[in-house]
Amino acid sequence: MTKAVVLGAGSWGTTFAKVLADAGTDVTLWTRRSEVADAIVTRHENPDYLPGITLPAALSATADHQKALDGADIVVLAVPSQSLRGNLERWAGAIGADATLLSLAKGIESVTLLRMSEVISQVAAVDPSRVAVLSGPNLAREIALEQPTATVVACTDEARAMAIQKSCATGYFRPYTNTDVIGCEIGGACKNVIALACGMASGIGLGENTIATLITRGLAETIRLGVALGGKAPTLAGLAGVGDLVATCNSPLSRNRSFGERLGLGDSLESAQAATNGQVAEGVKSCTSVRALAAAHGVEMPLTDAVHQVCHEGLAVRDAVGILLGRRVKPE
Amino acid sequence: MTKAVVLGAGSWGTTFAKVLADAGTDVTLWTRRSEVADAIVTRHENPDYLPGITLPAALSATADHQKALDGADIVVLAVPSQSLRGNLERWAGAIGADATLLSLAKGIESVTLLRMSEVISQVAAVDPSRVAVLSGPNLAREIALEQPTATVVACTDEARAMAIQKSCATGYFRPYTNTDVIGCEIGGACKNVIALACGMASGIGLGENTIATLITRGLAETIRLGVALGGKAPTLAGLAGVGDLVATCNSPLSRNRSFGERLGLGDSLESAQAATNGQVAEGVKSCTSVRALAAAHGVEMPLTDAVHQVCHEGLAVRDAVGILLGRRVKPE
Repeated sequence: MTKAVVLGAGSWGTTFAKVLADAGTDVTLWTRRSEVADAIVTRHENPDYLPGITLPAALSATADHQKALDGADIVVLAVPSQSLRGNLERWAGAIGADATLLSLAKGIESVTLLRMSEVISQVAAVDPSRVAVLSGPNLAREIALEQPTATVVACTDEARAMAIQKSCATGYFRPYTNTDVIGCEIGGACKNVIALACGMASGIGLGENTIATLITRGLAETIRLGVALGGKAPTLAGLAGVGDLVATCNSPLSRNRSFGERLGLGDSLESAQAATNGQVAEGVKSCTSVRALAAAHGVEMPLTDAVHQVCHEGLAVRDAVGILLGRRVKPE
Repeated sequence: MTKAVVLGAGSWGTTFAKVLADAGTDVTLWTRRSEVADAIVTRHENPDYLPGITLPAALSATADHQKALDGADIVVLAVPSQSLRGNLERWAGAIGADATLLSLAKGIESVTLLRMSEVISQVAAVDPSRVAVLSGPNLAREIALEQPTATVVACTDEARAMAIQKSCATGYFRPYTNTDVIGCEIGGACKNVIALACGMASGIGLGENTIATLITRGLAETIRLGVALGGKAPTLAGLAGVGDLVATCNSPLSRNRSFGERLGLGDSLESAQAATNGQVAEGVKSCTSVRALAAAHGVEMPLTDAVHQVCHEGLAVRDAVGILLGRRVKPE
């Protein structure tokens, strides 16, 4: 029986642990706080991040990472992208010599501009062929409710991708394998920035045509960046590109979309943050690192640029949308 | 000054006539009924198809196609795809010897399985290089409200595409040129079928992940068909593919999306039709011709197949979604 550990009990980590358990994998969820582990073990619920969802009785949980990692064939990294390095430094010593490391984190590390799989390979000192990523149209709460979806498991070592595929295939969650790790990661890193732009356009009252135009432009610049880094365009036309992008840009559950809407409605970054439980949307941070990565490779990303200017350089949303669409935007 | 005629005064034809007029083109809108032409000329409104929108004073209208076509450099065909042939047979003799024919119609002609540009070239007996198509994320009503969007004007003769681009570029409507007529037309023909599938999934209560998965799968089979016919994948990753698809699948204004929702909620084809002013959604018809075209070229299109089975072979929506996602679909 495959043994997996999920490190990080946010909504996506908790949901993916449920998926693994539903697929018949022996899975332990590591939580930072022991009271959350207790709630999962005794009440089968993660009250902080997945309230109202009954977790499988077979799902165990602990706040002891040594214990959680012991004997794990698949180590799932489900912490936020910017804290992955720090966490992994603590965990690395307890990871088994042949375990596959699976990243659920999406983003580009600031300062180093590394993709998450690169951070993992570097910090855990493992060959890149042992690192896999999972990405697709995967809003956590809908999966927790067992609404059907598909996803991509990418690893340069196809056998490892297939082992992960087997470990998480359920009636409602269908994983496809791919060897294009770079394409999958670039899709995941860029989509939150595009969702922010869509939210902004929606916030100033623009409709589906405008949003579809922004999604298409955002996809085009994502493909340019992905291909420049060695990824493949078809990956980005697939579940980890278009699929993830469309789900993120459309969902009222998406923090990035709704954060952008607040900015479009005139909120400052600070007041939008205050209105969303003090959390700043991921795209607000990742637009900076995506932009820097693009600049380092000579790739033009006008949409990412415009989002960066709104978030960090005081550009008005209306002016940003005007720049993006190459025209004056009529007031309503 | 460029002279254009728009043949067909439905919501898209009327809106595009407004765009042309706003771009400074001398444009006449041909309407089937003279009272509609009168309303446009005297009240600057098309009360049947674009109520509440004030049309440009410069826009003229007539029910006399001979008069409308006289001296037109650009002949815009804005009638439904399945009635294009019959209409064009009446108009062909009045079309100028060097006019460019621009298709706004989206679909595959039943029986012949021809694309609209092929029907035009055949019926008007003009070289294919004189036929252009326009496609993109272009919900008519949003454009009539001057919300910003982009579109693609495709013609194998790039100079003609550029002349059309110039004739319709306004502050809120940005046309890009392309020479891939096939890719643009296949994108436009397939998107209504995919929107029907998205509506069905939404109607049975499934969420954004499922819909994004269907959009991605639908795009993949559209690309397969387009490439098999000689179109280009990047066209379908662009405004005339992803852009049009996303706008159509997301909009509450989309007839196909809402028609699919009714089917998902349990309506029969007949009662869904009765609830939508007696109109059957375009995708209900085009799934049959797209499927036949795919079969003729050995292309697998499982999503189109499933939609066809629901619309014409009595398959239950829930079973169709289950087949598409390769799994049983949990009841809510």
